[in-house]
Amino acid sequence: MNLENICVNKSFGGWHKRYRHRSDVLNCTMTFSIYLPPQASEANPVPVLYWLSGLTCTDENFMQKAGAQRIAAELGMAIVAPDTSPRGDGVADDAGYDLGQGAGFYINATQPPWNRHYRMYDYVVEELPGLVEATFPVTDQRAISGHSMGGHGALMIALKNPERYLSVSAFSPVTNPVNCPWGRKAFDAYLGSGLEAWQAHDSSVLMQRSERFLPTLVDQGESDEFLAEQLKPEALEAAAEISGYPLVLRHQPGYDHSYYFIASFMEEHLRFHAQHLL
Amino acid sequence: MNLENICVNKSFGGWHKRYRHRSDVLNCTMTFSIYLPPQASEANPVPVLYWLSGLTCTDENFMQKAGAQRIAAELGMAIVAPDTSPRGDGVADDAGYDLGQGAGFYINATQPPWNRHYRMYDYVVEELPGLVEATFPVTDQRAISGHSMGGHGALMIALKNPERYLSVSAFSPVTNPVNCPWGRKAFDAYLGSGLEAWQAHDSSVLMQRSERFLPTLVDQGESDEFLAEQLKPEALEAAAEISGYPLVLRHQPGYDHSYYFIASFMEEHLRFHAQHLL
Repeated sequence: MNLENICVNKSFGGWHKRYRHRSDVLNCTMTFSIYLPPQASEANPVPVLYWLSGLTCTDENFMQKAGAQRIAAELGMAIVAPDTSPRGDGVADDAGYDLGQGAGFYINATQPPWNRHYRMYDYVVEELPGLVEATFPVTDQRAISGHSMGGHGALMIALKNPERYLSVSAFSPVTNPVNCPWGRKAFDAYLGSGLEAWQAHDSSVLMQRSERFLPTLVDQGESDEFLAEQLKPEALEAAAEISGYPLVLRHQPGYDHSYYFIASFMEEHLRFHAQHLL
Repeated sequence: MNLENICVNKSFGGWHKRYRHRSDVLNCTMTFSIYLPPQASEANPVPVLYWLSGLTCTDENFMQKAGAQRIAAELGMAIVAPDTSPRGDGVADDAGYDLGQGAGFYINATQPPWNRHYRMYDYVVEELPGLVEATFPVTDQRAISGHSMGGHGALMIALKNPERYLSVSAFSPVTNPVNCPWGRKAFDAYLGSGLEAWQAHDSSVLMQRSERFLPTLVDQGESDEFLAEQLKPEALEAAAEISGYPLVLRHQPGYDHSYYFIASFMEEHLRFHAQHLL
């Protein structure tokens, strides 16, 4: 088995585990974390929430800071957190925090030098769930969530694959990457200059055109330092209005972009997903 | 006011704040974090739990990883987390992670070069509560808790100052520092070779001699990697038996030394303190 356990911690009666594995899709060694609630067993497989983190994060930030294990243990839900990009000395990188390692943007790069490794879309949609579902006592009932760049990833992936997920949520997502600096820089590097490829990975464009609906919950802090320039929740709200998408987007007064915000509303997101997963 | 706010995050309806200030006791600039629950106001001051962290930590680890804010917000309890030692270029240090900066052991050093700055006992017992109570909407009702080196600090400080605290708890505390490598290294450096000074800062010795009792809760993971060599909960249990101290010490199967353990039982510790504070 191509899966090396590198860390185990008991947590709320269940188990937090980290694994290293060779990713064929990304062509490098990757690390991911999984939380298995106490209910999970071969006789009782549990559904999985996939969590996509934001810029600069690894698989560890969510598990350490979001406070999700308590509720996942109560609900009987596994949570899988991948890293945010391919990693390693041989993997292309950039001096900026918003491109290259730690900034994979959950898309498949088509442009050199990025296209040798940066295929986070295929990794998150196909390879990682395949590995998880073949290895752990989980079902193929999936939900997906994320923060910031990972909120973009969760919404975009769910909108493109509504048959693979039962629900989607996001905290402070980059809703309209074709129209913000983080998104334009990453899409230009990874996808080149074609508008069609950009729009095919933009949640606001996808939601506006969507005909198949998933339960969707978004929380956005009103004191988020990236709100106006990068996140643009109004773009997603406008898209939902056009297609009639059942988007619930909540503006939370006083909250910023940090994990203190995420932790404050994590319980509501997990209970939202549980309504559709369990 | 000698207090510079360097960070504010809304968290569970209350506020996580970090401050920098000049410490007269430690003779350097220090940073601490405070969580103020939504109930706290000039008209409604709230009690305070002081949290002492373990080796290598700063004031940030607890606030980011323990998941305490949710329960503190429900109960109406402030939490203050100091740093674990004096800090700065001019402050003595050691190459080891278990001595010098990040390893103040919550005692007042008497030996050079440490005695210029390392007076964490006076800082935690006197200076920091004085500053907190003069600045924030809190009462002088105090509880104290901590982890590992900070569990030693919480128990030792409560045992030496039972009139200043209403309850004490600890996770994986160094219960008998005079008899473990971490404690012996630190006490030898900070206090020199006198057995009396060592014993005056050892929770098992103090508890054995104690005549004034505080409600005391300790959780210890049975899979803690430092259990046998450094933590020695049996020393504290034996001391409590001798003095009849009302110690509740729970052995938690499968849990290790990490914040995943702390987070799993944080709610029970905060509700324990609330019984005596509120």
